Amino acid sequence: MTLRTAFTEHLGIAHPIVSAPMGGVAGGALAGAVSEAGGLGLIGGGAGVRGGVEPELRLVRSVTEKPWGIGFLSWAVDVDTVAWALEFGPAAVLLSFGDPMPFAERIRASGAKLILQVTDLDEARRALDAGADIIVAQGGDAGGHSGGNAIGTMSFVPAVVDLAGATPVLAAGGIADGRGLAAALALGAAGALIGTGFEATSEALTSAEEVEALLAAEGRDTERNRTLDIARGSAWPDRYPARTLRNEFLDKWRGRDDELREDTEARGEYQDLAARNDLSAVPVWAGQGVGLVTAVQGAVDLVEAIASAADRVVDRAARMRDVSSPY
Amino acid sequence: MTLRTAFTEHLGIAHPIVSAPMGGVAGGALAGAVSEAGGLGLIGGGAGVRGGVEPELRLVRSVTEKPWGIGFLSWAVDVDTVAWALEFGPAAVLLSFGDPMPFAERIRASGAKLILQVTDLDEARRALDAGADIIVAQGGDAGGHSGGNAIGTMSFVPAVVDLAGATPVLAAGGIADGRGLAAALALGAAGALIGTGFEATSEALTSAEEVEALLAAEGRDTERNRTLDIARGSAWPDRYPARTLRNEFLDKWRGRDDELREDTEARGEYQDLAARNDLSAVPVWAGQGVGLVTAVQGAVDLVEAIASAADRVVDRAARMRDVSSPY
Repeated sequence: MTLRTAFTEHLGIAHPIVSAPMGGVAGGALAGAVSEAGGLGLIGGGAGVRGGVEPELRLVRSVTEKPWGIGFLSWAVDVDTVAWALEFGPAAVLLSFGDPMPFAERIRASGAKLILQVTDLDEARRALDAGADIIVAQGGDAGGHSGGNAIGTMSFVPAVVDLAGATPVLAAGGIADGRGLAAALALGAAGALIGTGFEATSEALTSAEEVEALLAAEGRDTERNRTLDIARGSAWPDRYPARTLRNEFLDKWRGRDDELREDTEARGEYQDLAARNDLSAVPVWAGQGVGLVTAVQGAVDLVEAIASAADRVVDRAARMRDVSSPY
Repeated sequence: MTLRTAFTEHLGIAHPIVSAPMGGVAGGALAGAVSEAGGLGLIGGGAGVRGGVEPELRLVRSVTEKPWGIGFLSWAVDVDTVAWALEFGPAAVLLSFGDPMPFAERIRASGAKLILQVTDLDEARRALDAGADIIVAQGGDAGGHSGGNAIGTMSFVPAVVDLAGATPVLAAGGIADGRGLAAALALGAAGALIGTGFEATSEALTSAEEVEALLAAEGRDTERNRTLDIARGSAWPDRYPARTLRNEFLDKWRGRDDELREDTEARGEYQDLAARNDLSAVPVWAGQGVGLVTAVQGAVDLVEAIASAADRVVDRAARMRDVSSPY
């Protein structure tokens, strides 16, 4: 049983489920498993460091012959690197966080679908102007980086759908199971992009300690901040906060970003903790749906579980329709 | 056509749609119209000032003979006032923001359904302990006051549903149309509680200027803050921020709540603006779904529009199910 949408038809895949291109988390093993299960797996291409990305591109092609894709950060990647990645034959390229214009034509000319992730309505308008084949509407519920103007998935998705017309929209942020996927479809989306759930699969490049922290957390244990990017000296622009699990370093520095920026000693302490991947300091990316993630499983099983649960949810909702209501 | 759920069966009503008990906004006219249309209309009883509430209780009974209800703030209302309100015959009493225990038994003993609104999982556990007949899971997307630990509706609702077992859950926050209601049902809720959408109906006690501001706004024009409650000298406890439209007063005082608290001159300036209901300063309560509210209509029409749109959405989702998928 599958749920067919404009997105699944567009890509020629079974399930309207996309695994997010999480940098350092979503390699070829995860993307390949998701695609093999009938979803669309996306490699986290990040800023496009070829030495890091190439093994994952080779790996995904060894895992699946079904459509897969790759995501890049528009503010960080260069056109040549995107062109280089296209030679590996992705069925889709997702661009997030920045101006997609320099890359859009090249991607579409290759035959790959151009997927643009947006975090507010202005970005959605620009994505349509850029010729997006598919738009991802990312609500502020999402884990990892998001837009400064982000609003909740529940109302952001229908607002983007109203703008997008015939262009399929995927919902992202706070979706972790079949109920979330079915809700996304109800909001008018043609599928869901899921991060945190896949971060806790056995194929993700997540450490055992990180997975343990994800399984133990609930939604209120997450927090959007710039603090950990400042601490780690990340090049992410200030306009993109990131949702991570709360930790002791955040508790200590919350609300003092400017001070932290100037405090080389504190950032040195962070570096020492980070060298040990100490979770009291380093970011564990997590969306508000993390409370719904309670067990590790393989990515194939997770895709199948989400798809079949969503199908049951849709069937249950259909049985709520009552033509013979006394009212 | 109606969508039947455990909630509609519980109340004996046609549609799983509840209008939020917005203080100063939801009077007897609005609650009565929503109930008359087959939803459950709730009067905003606020802190329970009887002189203000009594005319609305009399009004709702003149408008409808169908089930209606009233909401109170647990931190502000007293037991005698709740008992007094029960004599008007509400079918349901909704309690929000504070300890429901002092009121719970009295309400249930009257035959009214006890509806408890919760903003995090600890509150949800306490609501079940208090014997809630129905739980409202309010996400941080919601307008007006919410909990300090609030997370997005998309993931909070299924987390509460998992806790609540057989107790019906209503979703609140970011829901403004039939897509939102259908999404709420997909998340496992038995209905939706909607605020901002009903705030812009002709029956609401909203000024023409406020309605105009709501229609012009989109989700990112809202902001959770304590600032406007501090400015107006409100008794709301600090742990409950409120989502309002952004305005000039907020722009001036954002991040300086402690300073504002001590600045009697600034609060005097606020009082002058508030005396003229100047929207550059006074709170216009609005949820992130405000961008989906684009026209004023009557509450009966709005209930019917949401119900029929939700039905179409469920029907459309059911047609996505594909038993003969090639995959």
